[in-house]
Amino acid sequence: MAASLQLRGAASGLWYWSHRPRWVAASLAAVCSRSMASKTPVGFIGLGNMGNPMAKNLMKHGYPLVIYDVFPDACKEFQEAGEQVVSSPADVAEKADRIITMLPTSINTVEVYSGANGILKKVKKGSLLIDSSTIDPAVSKELSKEVEKMGAVFMDAPVSGGVGAARSGNLTFMVGGVEDEFAAAQELLGCMGANVVYCGAVGTGQAAKICNNMLLAISMIGTAEAMNLGIRLGLDPKLLAKILNMSSGRCWSSDTYNPVPGVMDGVPSANNYEGGFGATLMAKDLGLAQDSATSTKSPVLLGSLAHQIYRMMCAKGYSKKDFSAVFQFLREEETF
Amino acid sequence: MAASLQLRGAASGLWYWSHRPRWVAASLAAVCSRSMASKTPVGFIGLGNMGNPMAKNLMKHGYPLVIYDVFPDACKEFQEAGEQVVSSPADVAEKADRIITMLPTSINTVEVYSGANGILKKVKKGSLLIDSSTIDPAVSKELSKEVEKMGAVFMDAPVSGGVGAARSGNLTFMVGGVEDEFAAAQELLGCMGANVVYCGAVGTGQAAKICNNMLLAISMIGTAEAMNLGIRLGLDPKLLAKILNMSSGRCWSSDTYNPVPGVMDGVPSANNYEGGFGATLMAKDLGLAQDSATSTKSPVLLGSLAHQIYRMMCAKGYSKKDFSAVFQFLREEETF
Amino acid sequence: MAASLQLRGAASGLWYWSHRPRWVAASLAAVCSRSMASKTPVGFIGLGNMGNPMAKNLMKHGYPLVIYDVFPDACKEFQEAGEQVVSSPADVAEKADRIITMLPTSINTVEVYSGANGILKKVKKGSLLIDSSTIDPAVSKELSKEVEKMGAVFMDAPVSGGVGAARSGNLTFMVGGVEDEFAAAQELLGCMGANVVYCGAVGTGQAAKICNNMLLAISMIGTAEAMNLGIRLGLDPKLLAKILNMSSGRCWSSDTYNPVPGVMDGVPSANNYEGGFGATLMAKDLGLAQDSATSTKSPVLLGSLAHQIYRMMCAKGYSKKDFSAVFQFLREEETF
Amino acid sequence: MAASLQLRGAASGLWYWSHRPRWVAASLAAVCSRSMASKTPVGFIGLGNMGNPMAKNLMKHGYPLVIYDVFPDACKEFQEAGEQVVSSPADVAEKADRIITMLPTSINTVEVYSGANGILKKVKKGSLLIDSSTIDPAVSKELSKEVEKMGAVFMDAPVSGGVGAARSGNLTFMVGGVEDEFAAAQELLGCMGANVVYCGAVGTGQAAKICNNMLLAISMIGTAEAMNLGIRLGLDPKLLAKILNMSSGRCWSSDTYNPVPGVMDGVPSANNYEGGFGATLMAKDLGLAQDSATSTKSPVLLGSLAHQIYRMMCAKGYSKKDFSAVFQFLREEETF
Repeated sequence: MAASLQLRGAASGLWYWSHRPRWVAASLAAVCSRSMASKTPVGFIGLGNMGNPMAKNLMKHGYPLVIYDVFPDACKEFQEAGEQVVSSPADVAEKADRIITMLPTSINTVEVYSGANGILKKVKKGSLLIDSSTIDPAVSKELSKEVEKMGAVFMDAPVSGGVGAARSGNLTFMVGGVEDEFAAAQELLGCMGANVVYCGAVGTGQAAKICNNMLLAISMIGTAEAMNLGIRLGLDPKLLAKILNMSSGRCWSSDTYNPVPGVMDGVPSANNYEGGFGATLMAKDLGLAQDSATSTKSPVLLGSLAHQIYRMMCAKGYSKKDFSAVFQFLREEETF
Repeated sequence: MAASLQLRGAASGLWYWSHRPRWVAASLAAVCSRSMASKTPVGFIGLGNMGNPMAKNLMKHGYPLVIYDVFPDACKEFQEAGEQVVSSPADVAEKADRIITMLPTSINTVEVYSGANGILKKVKKGSLLIDSSTIDPAVSKELSKEVEKMGAVFMDAPVSGGVGAARSGNLTFMVGGVEDEFAAAQELLGCMGANVVYCGAVGTGQAAKICNNMLLAISMIGTAEAMNLGIRLGLDPKLLAKILNMSSGRCWSSDTYNPVPGVMDGVPSANNYEGGFGATLMAKDLGLAQDSATSTKSPVLLGSLAHQIYRMMCAKGYSKKDFSAVFQFLREEETF
Repeated sequence: MAASLQLRGAASGLWYWSHRPRWVAASLAAVCSRSMASKTPVGFIGLGNMGNPMAKNLMKHGYPLVIYDVFPDACKEFQEAGEQVVSSPADVAEKADRIITMLPTSINTVEVYSGANGILKKVKKGSLLIDSSTIDPAVSKELSKEVEKMGAVFMDAPVSGGVGAARSGNLTFMVGGVEDEFAAAQELLGCMGANVVYCGAVGTGQAAKICNNMLLAISMIGTAEAMNLGIRLGLDPKLLAKILNMSSGRCWSSDTYNPVPGVMDGVPSANNYEGGFGATLMAKDLGLAQDSATSTKSPVLLGSLAHQIYRMMCAKGYSKKDFSAVFQFLREEETF
Repeated sequence: MAASLQLRGAASGLWYWSHRPRWVAASLAAVCSRSMASKTPVGFIGLGNMGNPMAKNLMKHGYPLVIYDVFPDACKEFQEAGEQVVSSPADVAEKADRIITMLPTSINTVEVYSGANGILKKVKKGSLLIDSSTIDPAVSKELSKEVEKMGAVFMDAPVSGGVGAARSGNLTFMVGGVEDEFAAAQELLGCMGANVVYCGAVGTGQAAKICNNMLLAISMIGTAEAMNLGIRLGLDPKLLAKILNMSSGRCWSSDTYNPVPGVMDGVPSANNYEGGFGATLMAKDLGLAQDSATSTKSPVLLGSLAHQIYRMMCAKGYSKKDFSAVFQFLREEETF
């Protein structure tokens, strides 16, 4: 998806040039040689579209898994591959002291940790619990407190990058939690992603993802509005894109993921807006940004409106399309 | 200002790589050697903050000037320098067959062309009239029709870049008009700017500038909202900027002109938002974008809201500040 | 339409109670008896959906007409009825010293007054020119100046109320112009409308209409959003409407023209949003409000967004529906 | 505050005319005579600005109280008046089977019910628990489930009306919960308010309040924008208000609580925006509306923007002013 494409391009250069003490990035090689030593079992909860390929990458790197999913079928192929399947998050916590969770919503995540048969029921002292779900940072902080009470460690590590990046191990992890534990998290996350970024205290991983995606939504809609207006004013789309990209209007949505069909190749707008980052997922992330803005009293005027626009767009038949289809959604406008 | 800073950086590479038939760019050298041959007088109307240094760059390149400004004082230093000062736009048209106009508003521009003593009263057949004012593209088209009736040629060539770029001859001109006449326009514009971009039919120069600045305003406010939200969620501003700039939220406002004090050097946010591109000018350009969107029935939801935000911001004491001060305007928010 | 329905209800009471010197209202009776004396010809230009029934009401009151329309067919039935049809606005001005114009846009209006064969070419000193078109107040002021130069009088008198109100003589006229001339305007307008309101200097008639319709659009969308949200939260629509209407959320759109099917009878929402005030017309009026806000630097955040919403709505197939269909437009939202 | 002023006006007429089975309204008299029989103790938790006068009205009607507040001082005057003060919500539940809670936020409310020493720790079977806090309807539903598990009854009954209405017993209660229990709730609520409205299942009381206040905020800002625009276009404020109020722009904010100084007497705008309904409270309610809209996927474009506007307004020094001060906030706009 969006971010990962970009990251493959930008990583190398930007990345190391900008190396700083509290900032850590891990090359796949480095991480995995470093971890060859001890391969104790790793727990994995949530084996959906994203979790499945992520767990497989851990297997590839030689980690035995202890897995659980609310849908038994999701565990089948892992069982056949000889991995250990158990019947509750609590059982995972009993058998593994490093657990990764990848779940769709805040509610599912709270259930998996604090529920009747949740991880916290049997978690071992000193365990490392990494949640890669994208949820409200406030919930991550709450969970972290409960985990600490049990003498374990919690980190939030949401991903940037879609199913494709998950398969190819090119995800970016934005990690929040105690810095001393970052190296330990990195050992596992480095097997599933090309970039592992330390963001600060618990919740800042979620915060970083939310802020990036809110700005992404705003600049994508802005690009769609500007391109559409320019076209109606008589400009050639390719020429306009070129002018924007050499000027101050330049943004990732205009120069790397242009939403106007015919301007770029290899992007969803060149493929009827198939693939990419779904409008529904963008609407969900904008909802989280809204919640965070409301609870921190941060003014996000364009962010609020972007949220509403993506919600309307999903309702008008674009829910399965890439989020850049907002250009199509706006262009439909008839003259009257 | 904004765009020009960027352009100095981007020009070389991007520019020629992206060379295409209907796309033309001019190096200062090329243009001026090519034009050394005949230096007939050039008319210049409107010698304000921008017009004054622009006219001086024409003088530097050896063009005799015939000038007029509604404020006689504005002509003084040119008179002392031996240039010809006349008493109306009509008189300029009588003495020069190439005229550049640089005026603050649509109304002034219409007056200078179509007024009682306007250019059209005495314009010669075949004259080249170049308007570098930033005005409504619809007005440019109207003027073009009137000019054609007189057997002359009109081109709109608004600039990107501020007073500094005007002095150093680093402006970018976005030019709309008959393509056959572009080389002739280029001869003069190339003496005042580093980039001269052909955009298409009359009005498209204005259209390109308006679309760029609307997207710039949207991504700048979006960057301010995202940075502010992230900071309130506990992220370090420099780290957040780094994450955005290597991800899909990246835009010119985040990686080249970051609005958060302490993140970058050499930008207005590092200098109490002094200098740069004034919030008032941005509000004006967004007003033009609004008008164009209304007349072409183009939906610009974020563009409309950005316009209103800059208007409020100017009203709350930021009218003299750089447009990136929108971060300061939003951050003021108290918790309650 | 909207406003007139309301006015029939509210007029009597509110109206006279609130009688003030600079405030004038006319009962049909009063006006027409007062004018029985002299019935000199009245010019009428623009005989479309609105102009046609308005002109007929003047005939009913015994005024001989001199008419012109750019489409000759529009004049046919008047010719057959024995009225005088001429071939240009100028000819109308030659034969009548009281003229009413009812045209679709600012451009048409300027053409009819200032065009090659416009009214101003042959207008008589002392003539009374009343423009009932809905246009930009700034244009009304411009026209007024030109008319004054010819020694004639101009008044803007846009209408509230649709075709139905035009037929039944129940329009409301909001009049701007010299107060001394108001009585004269009233004599004619009172034959076509139930309420004639003096608003102040030229342009204030347009201003009053624009402000009312902007607030109408905002409160209608707000009502649609609130009703939709309440329904999704489990409230019965009729009960919610009742609660709003006895509380501080009450507005004309909630208590007189509720947009939710099943809540009220006799409104467009009870008739598949047929009839009423078209979304396209609302979008046009909001465009005028935008232009006025931009030129007066008035912040209209909700007004801008309402404009964009109505533009999108028209583009999504609602252009022919009543403007209260915004509820339907928003409710379509699917859950995801 | 807003709503209650309105209600005193509207009640009588509207109210009974609109009487329906599932709709109930209670006159103070009726309720209290009906309940004179048995006056068992009533628990009251949360004795802040609103809770204090509400509890006193229960005392006036002869109900012995069992009270608790996290701040002991808040209980002092009740103790001196001979009421029973206990040291935790649990203790209140032990001594009273009818409890009213009036707390500032969702978090406080959850703590009081489900906390370590919460009501649920010692609640008796069959107890009636009424929460008059204004919180997220989703939280009300959650609490209701937990209460049911204990064999008790929960109802949400947020109030419309401020401290003044609380003192004079003129609050309006919007009640959600099992209809069979409504009469019982009414007995107590009728002693503290002039209107008790049954809204439906648990959470609908909160929903009704949230929807009303969202529409109120939208129409208030809309009124401020329309009045400000009209004034700048040359209209007299009183005349414009009159025109709006007899037209389709009419709303509670324009005809009962006009935000423009000089248009009406006896409203906050006539008193430097002191008193009334604070901008901060409106911002809080709009935050709840946002949350509900996000969780129900309801598009609320104007509601979102209104929320952001009130948040900015509070940050710019209006947090203590009445919410109608948004007119002052917008008018400040300078021309530039």
